[in-house]
Amino acid sequence: MEFLARIEQDIPPDMDPDRLAAVKAAEAVRGQELVDAGKLVRIWRIPGRRAVYGLYDVDGPDELHAILSSLPLYPWMDIEITALGTHALDPHSA
Amino acid sequence: MEFLARIEQDIPPDMDPDRLAAVKAAEAVRGQELVDAGKLVRIWRIPGRRAVYGLYDVDGPDELHAILSSLPLYPWMDIEITALGTHALDPHSA
Amino acid sequence: MEFLARIEQDIPPDMDPDRLAAVKAAEAVRGQELVDAGKLVRIWRIPGRRAVYGLYDVDGPDELHAILSSLPLYPWMDIEITALGTHALDPHSA
Amino acid sequence: MEFLARIEQDIPPDMDPDRLAAVKAAEAVRGQELVDAGKLVRIWRIPGRRAVYGLYDVDGPDELHAILSSLPLYPWMDIEITALGTHALDPHSA
Amino acid sequence: MEFLARIEQDIPPDMDPDRLAAVKAAEAVRGQELVDAGKLVRIWRIPGRRAVYGLYDVDGPDELHAILSSLPLYPWMDIEITALGTHALDPHSA
Amino acid sequence: MEFLARIEQDIPPDMDPDRLAAVKAAEAVRGQELVDAGKLVRIWRIPGRRAVYGLYDVDGPDELHAILSSLPLYPWMDIEITALGTHALDPHSA
Amino acid sequence: MEFLARIEQDIPPDMDPDRLAAVKAAEAVRGQELVDAGKLVRIWRIPGRRAVYGLYDVDGPDELHAILSSLPLYPWMDIEITALGTHALDPHSA
Amino acid sequence: MEFLARIEQDIPPDMDPDRLAAVKAAEAVRGQELVDAGKLVRIWRIPGRRAVYGLYDVDGPDELHAILSSLPLYPWMDIEITALGTHALDPHSA
Amino acid sequence: MEFLARIEQDIPPDMDPDRLAAVKAAEAVRGQELVDAGKLVRIWRIPGRRAVYGLYDVDGPDELHAILSSLPLYPWMDIEITALGTHALDPHSA
Amino acid sequence: MEFLARIEQDIPPDMDPDRLAAVKAAEAVRGQELVDAGKLVRIWRIPGRRAVYGLYDVDGPDELHAILSSLPLYPWMDIEITALGTHALDPHSA
Repeated sequence: MEFLARIEQDIPPDMDPDRLAAVKAAEAVRGQELVDAGKLVRIWRIPGRRAVYGLYDVDGPDELHAILSSLPLYPWMDIEITALGTHALDPHSA
Repeated sequence: MEFLARIEQDIPPDMDPDRLAAVKAAEAVRGQELVDAGKLVRIWRIPGRRAVYGLYDVDGPDELHAILSSLPLYPWMDIEITALGTHALDPHSA
Repeated sequence: MEFLARIEQDIPPDMDPDRLAAVKAAEAVRGQELVDAGKLVRIWRIPGRRAVYGLYDVDGPDELHAILSSLPLYPWMDIEITALGTHALDPHSA
Repeated sequence: MEFLARIEQDIPPDMDPDRLAAVKAAEAVRGQELVDAGKLVRIWRIPGRRAVYGLYDVDGPDELHAILSSLPLYPWMDIEITALGTHALDPHSA
Repeated sequence: MEFLARIEQDIPPDMDPDRLAAVKAAEAVRGQELVDAGKLVRIWRIPGRRAVYGLYDVDGPDELHAILSSLPLYPWMDIEITALGTHALDPHSA
Repeated sequence: MEFLARIEQDIPPDMDPDRLAAVKAAEAVRGQELVDAGKLVRIWRIPGRRAVYGLYDVDGPDELHAILSSLPLYPWMDIEITALGTHALDPHSA
Repeated sequence: MEFLARIEQDIPPDMDPDRLAAVKAAEAVRGQELVDAGKLVRIWRIPGRRAVYGLYDVDGPDELHAILSSLPLYPWMDIEITALGTHALDPHSA
Repeated sequence: MEFLARIEQDIPPDMDPDRLAAVKAAEAVRGQELVDAGKLVRIWRIPGRRAVYGLYDVDGPDELHAILSSLPLYPWMDIEITALGTHALDPHSA
Repeated sequence: MEFLARIEQDIPPDMDPDRLAAVKAAEAVRGQELVDAGKLVRIWRIPGRRAVYGLYDVDGPDELHAILSSLPLYPWMDIEITALGTHALDPHSA
Repeated sequence: MEFLARIEQDIPPDMDPDRLAAVKAAEAVRGQELVDAGKLVRIWRIPGRRAVYGLYDVDGPDELHAILSSLPLYPWMDIEITALGTHALDPHSA
């Protein structure tokens, strides 16, 4: 089951640079784990913003929430999700 | 270059059924052409709405507009697009 | 899997009364079928509006969309859904 | 009388972890009391957010406010409530 | 139990004048009935708009909905209600 | 002349408790003065929020502003006012 | 007492030209009467829109509503008003 | 003096095709006149919408309004303008 | 050329009182200068808010920005401006 | 490929003046580099706000994001971009 997540980050401009670098590094590691596990199937940057669109393939809302709240940057994220239904034309649903 | 389009349809409840069926059939044919041409790479239904998210892979804004305005249902559509940048984690950008 | 749907109806004040009565009767029949099937588990009226909140228990977004678009009043409805995750305190999830 | 409450929490990312753990523990205890008293009849998590939907069964707006403002996390909550009317189809109102 | 209702009317500028006059006359009669019954305790005009604020004193959401949907102008109304709690300072709650 | 004011308070969760208690006590005193003077004619709590609706009877916008800005909690308030016109049905305007 | 009104007109593009011309002519006459009476003290066009800002000097909300609802174009207008208080710096309030 | 105008067109899907073609042809002629006169200095399409951004160089708000309201499609347009100030970095202001 | 500015101030409730008094005094001095220079032609308070409407008569957007950004309270202001066109009925444009 | 960016700056009023001056100086240098490189083709100030509109000519969303996130003031910026399509009337596209 796929969900589209729009994720905005609101990191204070004055966060300690070392801490920020550490959190971002942890975020990249966790993101790669989710890609490798087939949970994060697409991710795009929204230009000019500290924001991404992520496409997740999960069992349902509970797994989705577990995954999103496991992200190291989660405390600074504002996330809006959309449950996605399949469409007859979709090439990946054939 | 990928664009995410949120497409809402506002079809009058009292449109002539034969006309509506004809337009929807033409829409499906045009949609399949775009899939076959590799322009429409993903499409999802937004549950409970006459709305979809479409992911388009095009040369740029001009091709995107040409494609969207070629849709038979275009006169009844309200479309919001987001230009997407690549993200280091994205499995499809590797 | 539960979804919360806020459903607003926008029925023209001048719809033919016989037609409106017929559509509303069909809506009530279909609603009862969904209740009997355990798909529509709660429904509340939003006072002062032609609107309801419905709580649906379905397999996922596709069944939800199939159910909502089967409603006789669907062409006049504007529906916003929220995917719901389980909460440790919820008495019905125990 | 039932009310639907959408509760968003806005906890600072840098709140002292011990304090946060204590407040969350107190929140769980208070929530369980409300469940046991039959006041909080359903509660769902909104995936990807520090947010829940709660369904309360109370005497009226005053009891509702007393309950919500008794929550340990109340100072960090933004709450929107909707008064709910009964619907002829509702299985729980029969 | 008091509820505040903001009621906006959206009457088509080209409604037949006789019909409009008849509906408005019926609305005034129904409004007076609600005042006499102690259900509509205050009503104010919002200047420059076809809109009012109404303060209703009712048993709960169901009676409120029954009252509002009984208004002759209801099919043309958009209504937002707010459930009101009592306040220690309120002169009318003493 | 009556004005409806929706008053939201945004008090920091970590305000010093003694200071908060003192400000709230002063607020209650000032509120009672306004009630006794016939300026604050109704006040309701909005459940689940640090917010009230207040109905003021004043000479005009200048007196209204003087009153609202005299509130001890004014620096933490966000206030939206609506000028109210009289309505032929209003029981208090007769 | 001054009020600022933002007035948007929503005239159907296909209104009969003769009728539109007649209504606009009547609107201009009524507007001039309000200017001559000192009620409409300033009026500005909002460029690119069928919209104006009007500054009214009236006894209060009731006279304001009587004036605005007397405008020939009132059935096609959407009006938002702001009650204005005097400011110590204002050259016209001296 | 430059103004940025976001222009959305809301043309009914069922407008008579001959009339629509005639209006669009007139719109193109008028647009070219504005370009030739140096009034319309840039114009871009917003992909997926019947909308454009236009950059106008005019004497002020009055000329801007005269130009925009002279457009054959003006009755179907919704226009938001932004007055633009010069910026020290702007290559065209040097 | 006239511009309407809606100016909201967002001053922290805990700003040092001496500093606040000094900034407000400087603001009043600067405001009087603008009045004396004929640049600030009207100013009104928005009741219940730390907000004003100001009517400025300037050469264009650049002078307007220079004036607004010269205000001592500018760092705490959120300003929305509207360029105003002349209207045939305006008494001050005659 | 052109993109329109609306850039709002949210700089704390109490930022250290030396630091602010240094960041602004660096911003001007970087802006000039982008102008010289032909990437920033137009830039306008939005009067009364710490905001600009920028018109960028870049290869696509990735170069746009690289440029915007290279700005010294980027951590304090909120940026909304619009992908622009070419229009037949545009003088610069001929």
